[in-house]
Amino acid sequence: MASQQFDPPSGTRDFVAADLRQRERVFHAARTVFERYGFEPLQTPAFERLETLTGKYGDEGDKLIFKILKRGVHEGSGEADMALRYDQTVPLARVVAAHGSRLPTPYKRYVIGPVWRADRPGKGRFREFTQCDIDVVGSSSPLVEAEVVCAGADALDAMGVRDFAILVNSRKALTGLMQVHGVAADRAAGALITLDKLDKLPPAEVSAELVEARGLDRATAENLVNDVTADDAVQRMQAVLKDDPDGAEGLAEIDRLLELAGPHVGEDRLKFAPNLVRGLDYYTGAIWEVVAPGLPGSIASGGRYDHLIKAMGGPDVPACGFSIGVERIIGALGAVDEAADRIDVAVTVMSEAFVADAFGFAQALRGAGHTVEIFLGTTRKLGKQLKWAADRRARYALLQGDSEHAEGAVTIRDLETGDQERVSVGGLVTALDHKLRM
Amino acid sequence: MASQQFDPPSGTRDFVAADLRQRERVFHAARTVFERYGFEPLQTPAFERLETLTGKYGDEGDKLIFKILKRGVHEGSGEADMALRYDQTVPLARVVAAHGSRLPTPYKRYVIGPVWRADRPGKGRFREFTQCDIDVVGSSSPLVEAEVVCAGADALDAMGVRDFAILVNSRKALTGLMQVHGVAADRAAGALITLDKLDKLPPAEVSAELVEARGLDRATAENLVNDVTADDAVQRMQAVLKDDPDGAEGLAEIDRLLELAGPHVGEDRLKFAPNLVRGLDYYTGAIWEVVAPGLPGSIASGGRYDHLIKAMGGPDVPACGFSIGVERIIGALGAVDEAADRIDVAVTVMSEAFVADAFGFAQALRGAGHTVEIFLGTTRKLGKQLKWAADRRARYALLQGDSEHAEGAVTIRDLETGDQERVSVGGLVTALDHKLRM
Repeated sequence: MASQQFDPPSGTRDFVAADLRQRERVFHAARTVFERYGFEPLQTPAFERLETLTGKYGDEGDKLIFKILKRGVHEGSGEADMALRYDQTVPLARVVAAHGSRLPTPYKRYVIGPVWRADRPGKGRFREFTQCDIDVVGSSSPLVEAEVVCAGADALDAMGVRDFAILVNSRKALTGLMQVHGVAADRAAGALITLDKLDKLPPAEVSAELVEARGLDRATAENLVNDVTADDAVQRMQAVLKDDPDGAEGLAEIDRLLELAGPHVGEDRLKFAPNLVRGLDYYTGAIWEVVAPGLPGSIASGGRYDHLIKAMGGPDVPACGFSIGVERIIGALGAVDEAADRIDVAVTVMSEAFVADAFGFAQALRGAGHTVEIFLGTTRKLGKQLKWAADRRARYALLQGDSEHAEGAVTIRDLETGDQERVSVGGLVTALDHKLRM
Repeated sequence: MASQQFDPPSGTRDFVAADLRQRERVFHAARTVFERYGFEPLQTPAFERLETLTGKYGDEGDKLIFKILKRGVHEGSGEADMALRYDQTVPLARVVAAHGSRLPTPYKRYVIGPVWRADRPGKGRFREFTQCDIDVVGSSSPLVEAEVVCAGADALDAMGVRDFAILVNSRKALTGLMQVHGVAADRAAGALITLDKLDKLPPAEVSAELVEARGLDRATAENLVNDVTADDAVQRMQAVLKDDPDGAEGLAEIDRLLELAGPHVGEDRLKFAPNLVRGLDYYTGAIWEVVAPGLPGSIASGGRYDHLIKAMGGPDVPACGFSIGVERIIGALGAVDEAADRIDVAVTVMSEAFVADAFGFAQALRGAGHTVEIFLGTTRKLGKQLKWAADRRARYALLQGDSEHAEGAVTIRDLETGDQERVSVGGLVTALDHKLRM
């Protein structure tokens, strides 16, 4: 138990080299795609003023905000004035409000950075985790949805996620559906939250909840559920919504997105899914969720949210975004590839008299761009140093004993084959350049 | 005044694209060098348990720790249980204690990451700033000092810092000097703190403080100051220290570092500086500081600190490190190079009927790896769209009007020269590949 005092705080992680290489590979893949689409990086402080964050995430969210105590003479008050970033959207809203005139219009930004939530830690759930978001702020063009969906899909591809499908719906189509079925406007939001459970609960249970918790009559509840889950749900939606203004607009948004993005994402990977709801009520237009076989739930999601930036403290500008669950994806990528962690050359030190020479070899090879380590222990025994070289997963070891030293030479040992070659000190860099390029 | 509510919290910064590109260029330069030396990256959580941090930085440091309030039902207590990372050394000590057996021996780690201090914000002083550290934990070899100094110097070179000098001394040499001059052991640490002011105060004032604040007699104070500041200070130190065991060992450490690292860093850039003290009392061996013309104070520093990891909560292992003041260096690099921020192609949309075609051009060029933006505004006027393309610093604009569309062509406009070329849609990617490679 005593050793737990050295563990990182509950819900957080220490990332050592192999972890970081895997994470960086995934992040780099996403960044490369986002930059190609003209998204710009943004990095905001780890903490914001407390009042910037409170009231933006609902009562449950507010409880999960890490709050920072006032400092100095005010510490004793027990009051907080700062808080750790809870998501990437509120900071985006603040930046758009603060720097709007210096930013491009529309502002296309990506961010891959940590957020903190005082959630109960659990399997795959952390108190410090990375969010990967792209957002376009300031344009209502339907091209925005297409850009965002294509960039997100390309990023998932680049990260190595295979066989995913992007399910599309529209908040306006769902609003229209409520209207067509005569659900009162003040009950519609609640009904949608219940409909959103269709991916977890059987249709009958969802119908029952619509009746019991949301006050719909039984026939309406069953018709609603049937419309979005039937085998011919797409055709049903098109039929029932065509005369409702909101519904027709929603269907047109979906068609436009499928038309523009479908040819690039792949028609089979981008589908209208009438039963996709998304519980969050800030969406105003197209919405989508990405599912992949073998990965539970959704691995990414997004949509148009034209008033959220204002609600989050920014100006009233249209916006649309895509958020990728990178922690889930990294977790699914499985074991870290330690082979990628190899160093090129391990330099042994076989005598106190040759320390400076050995260091000179290391420096010359580093100067040529190779990854080189020199033995930093006290033993001069070759066997122990070769074990160290193997532990460090070096491809070659350099050895210089009395005999090599006397003739101005050094031995290169291939640590896979055990083959050795003696080369002149002057020819060392050329010889290893050649071997490492093979 | 009202707009200040959208500024980032006092002492923190929002980094937009151009800022991040400049910062990333500097960080990438350092990372590349550190990896070549076999240093491994480490990333620890932004916060640690409060007790991990308190008592490690002295009373003044403790006051500057950002403390995080307990959550949920404990929030009302006003008590903190977590705290933001204050430096990179305490987390390193914790990681060595927690994961020691899974880490290489010695453990060579680099870190380039943010720390938070509730300091009074001021010019060039931030509450959130990046520290760039390399450390070797677990070896007493003099090669460690040479590795660390060479890696630090190579990183400064790679970052673009010119004409720097690394000033070297040894804590043991300074201890020897105190002994030779008969300064009592319990006064030595205080006297060294005063001596450390020689880079800011004239020698006479330092002598006076040694007498008044540190209790030395006037002759001793003047001799001490004279020994380390005289034109022949190096020769004086060698003469006075050669018979003192600590002093002689300190001089030997300095000689060894100059011998091993000098040929690689450049003899003229690595110098024994008897008047270099460094106020921090955790150093146990060689110490150094890097100065560069035009940059006030030191831009990097380090040394051997064989008991700090234990004092910071880790095991009792020898260690040696180098910390680079990256914020100061980035600040000195001056204006951001916005030219590096260019995009390759801006795609205009000249008619509602051609939206899907235009998006197809953008996607095809992105697929070929180019950075492409498509116009997301509502106007279809070419002049406004060309102004947008220029604002985005695009190299080429794509235009497709009725005439191009009719013949299955698209016009490529060079935004620097105004030259235009009409190419077939099928030949677009090849044509732009060619132009962008020129």
